[in-house]
Parts: sequence; C-alpha cells; structure tokens
Amino acid sequence: MPNASSIDSLIQQFAKLPGIGPRSARRIVLQLIRKKEQLMQPLISVLQDSLHRIVPCGVCGNLDTVDPCHICADEGRDASMICVVEDLADLWAIERSKLYKGRYHILGGTLSAIDGRGPAALNIDSLVTRAAQTEVSEVILATNATVEGQTTAHYLTERLSACQVSTSRLAQGIPMGGELDYLDDGTLGAALKARQAF
Amino acid sequence: MPNASSIDSLIQQFAKLPGIGPRSARRIVLQLIRKKEQLMQPLISVLQDSLHRIVPCGVCGNLDTVDPCHICADEGRDASMICVVEDLADLWAIERSKLYKGRYHILGGTLSAIDGRGPAALNIDSLVTRAAQTEVSEVILATNATVEGQTTAHYLTERLSACQVSTSRLAQGIPMGGELDYLDDGTLGAALKARQAF
Repeated sequence: MPNASSIDSLIQQFAKLPGIGPRSARRIVLQLIRKKEQLMQPLISVLQDSLHRIVPCGVCGNLDTVDPCHICADEGRDASMICVVEDLADLWAIERSKLYKGRYHILGGTLSAIDGRGPAALNIDSLVTRAAQTEVSEVILATNATVEGQTTAHYLTERLSACQVSTSRLAQGIPMGGELDYLDDGTLGAALKARQAF
Repeated sequence: MPNASSIDSLIQQFAKLPGIGPRSARRIVLQLIRKKEQLMQPLISVLQDSLHRIVPCGVCGNLDTVDPCHICADEGRDASMICVVEDLADLWAIERSKLYKGRYHILGGTLSAIDGRGPAALNIDSLVTRAAQTEVSEVILATNATVEGQTTAHYLTERLSACQVSTSRLAQGIPMGGELDYLDDGTLGAALKARQAF
C-alpha cells in the first residue's frame, strides 16, 4: 500500500477520473513518480496550460483556447449549416469522421422530465438566434438516438419552424459491418422503413 | 476529433500513461475540461506537490515525501528483518497484505544478461552494508518467481553469505482459491515438493 500521504492523494485523484479504478491509478502513479521528467513534468505543464487557456466559445459552446473557437472562426467552413449536438464529445466524434464541414452548436444536454431539465437549461435561445440569421439555411439535429435526444430534436424543430431554415436529422439504420441477426428490433424496423432504392 | 492544440496535447499526454489508450484519454480529458474546479485543479496541485516532495529514501530506496522514508523511520517496525524487493510496486503489494512489519530494500530491478544489467546497476552494495549491521538477523528475498528474479535471489544469497544473517524466500505453492486443474505444471510441482505436514 502506498504510504506517503502525497502519493496516496495522487492515487485517489487519479482514481476519480472516468475508467480508472484504484488498481490502474496505482500503476499510473507508480509510472509517474518513476519518470518525473519524462511523464509527470510534461503532464503538469499541459494540464496547467489547459486550465488557464480553455474557454467556452461564445458562439457555439465548443471548448477551445480561443473565443470564438477555431471552428466558428474558420472562414473555410460552411456557415450555412449548423450541426446541433448534445455535447462536446459528440462534436469531437463528428469531427473525427472528417465529413462535415459546417458549424456546430452545443446544447449542453437534452430536455429531461425526470432530471427536471427544461429548455431554459440548454443553449436553445442562442441556437434560435443563430438560425434566424440569413446566412443559415440548414440545421442538422444530431442529438443521440435515445428517447431524450429525439424528444429534444422534436422540440427544436418546433422552435426553429419560425426561422427560414430546413431541419434534418442523422439517418437511422444498420451500422457498418452490422449483422442483421444481432441487431435490435428497433434498428431493424427503422432500417426497413427508411429503405433506399438500390 | 479534438481540435484545440492544447486539448490535443493533453490527450496525447494522458495516452502515454500505462493502461490508457487514445479513447480513454479522450474520455478523461473531456471530463477534466468539463470539471475544471472539481477535477483538474486538484489533480494539478497534487501532481505538483508530488513532483517536488517525493524523493527516494537514502536507506532503502523507497519513494516518499521524507528521507529516510516513513518505513525506515518507524521505530515500531522490526529492524532485524529486511525484505528485498525488485521494485516499488512490490513493496506496495507487501504493505497491502498488512502482514509484514520489518524494513525493506528496493533493488531497482533484477540481474539480466539479456538487458546487460549486472550487479553494479542494482542497489546491492547498500543491501550488503545494511545486512552487515549487527541488528539485522534475517533477509527475505522477495524477488519475483521469474527466472531473472530467482537468479537475482541466488546471487544475493552468495553475496550475503559473508554477513551474519539468515536468508529466506517467499513460499512457492498453490495460490489461494487456486484449482489444481488450472495450475501450470511448474507451480504444481513446486507445491508437491514443498508439501507440508497436515
């Protein structure tokens, strides 16, 4: 068992991070205190840098070292499209696909009756303001395919109906490499309903 | 894909830690930048604290915030026994068992012909000096049950033969809850050879 209180609290702090248990935290800390110069020092400096420099983008809610974020500031990106996502992780996932070249808007969650999250708790007003601008022609509602995500998407289409924009959502269907036999009935049903001409 | 260079380098830095891949690193960083006050700030301060305060113990090689470490400094621990381990992780493992109340000595690895690590690369001289002190009566060679660990243990018994100490090693046998059917032949053979009167 680690003994020095400083090592102990280091392990406890790492064990609070997602996906890291006490055992992995011990392994990580062991490596860190063995390699202070190569691992611990760079980790500290990059953490400090992030702590002070990362701020939310005033336009879309993305987190970046600049405000507006580099996506909103990028003139090369299509300003006529806004992709609405629940969360920063979803923005990263879409960026990884390298297929979307428009702007984003981060809601900061979904509507939820159970958790008591209403429209006021999300960045919806700023989205409506952005969508009302003449340059915007399409809003892609890329909320999750969960009940709450879809409820939120429906609510947003209503709110956006006053603006001169078309709304769309991500296609639902069989994932790449998916085997019919292992798919849930909901996905299979949606894929069947939305079948495309060959 | 994370875009801000600061977030990117944070993810890369976390992905260097043992057991963390790029995907877990993204999850961790996402959580950290979402919860700056509750997670990131405490992590930084405890890392900085560790960076400056953790030093190797001049007596046994343990890492601690004090030198000599709190185990060597603890008068309540049995100074007549020295448990020799390869590594800090092994010391932590034995401390977790809460059964050993003596002192430690950390070798810093094993002898290895392949890696070209000879006796001079390990903390062996300091062990012999410690073992030669009159208060020490037993040295437990708790190196790993690997070929290199056992070679090192054999070498140490030779080096310690001049000192007035008895040497011992950890018992080999069936682990707790182990089923004979699943044990390797080496372990089973060792357990059979070292069988104890019932």
